[in-house]
Amino acid sequence: MTEHVVFVGNKPVMNYVLATITQFNEGVDKVVIKARGRAISRAVDVAEIVRNRFLPNVKVEDIQIGTEELDSTQGKPLNVSTIEIYLSK
Amino acid sequence: MTEHVVFVGNKPVMNYVLATITQFNEGVDKVVIKARGRAISRAVDVAEIVRNRFLPNVKVEDIQIGTEELDSTQGKPLNVSTIEIYLSK
Repeated sequence: MTEHVVFVGNKPVMNYVLATITQFNEGVDKVVIKARGRAISRAVDVAEIVRNRFLPNVKVEDIQIGTEELDSTQGKPLNVSTIEIYLSK
Repeated sequence: MTEHVVFVGNKPVMNYVLATITQFNEGVDKVVIKARGRAISRAVDVAEIVRNRFLPNVKVEDIQIGTEELDSTQGKPLNVSTIEIYLSK
């Protein structure tokens, strides 16, 4: 069983949808979609578009949320929320 | 067992954090934080701030994602992602 990660950033949502579909088509069983901060909404879009439009047999197995501490330019640590969406087929 | 909903929109994140804490302090066992579209990232922030800064005994019980169809002004239906974060103490 292999697990691969798609890290969602600020590119158009379809870039990440395509990356996820490509992983599954290459025989990967599980893909984890990860994002933080504002990109969290886009990560949910990616999971929903993959399942509803392209790969209806893919299931959301688990969703985890968390907090990461980033070093900000002002020296004060900055907390940013994270999400991990575990998809499997 | 009672369940209450905090719907996260475009107001400052602390408004929703306070709404969630108030529910728990009034004796509610479960609070569902709901959001759609861009507000999804803020909903995750609300859950993380409530747990990490104010109510460490509150757990994330489940997270559901989905898609809602909205009527857009152009007549073409618009899909928007949704999230529901189930918190319990």
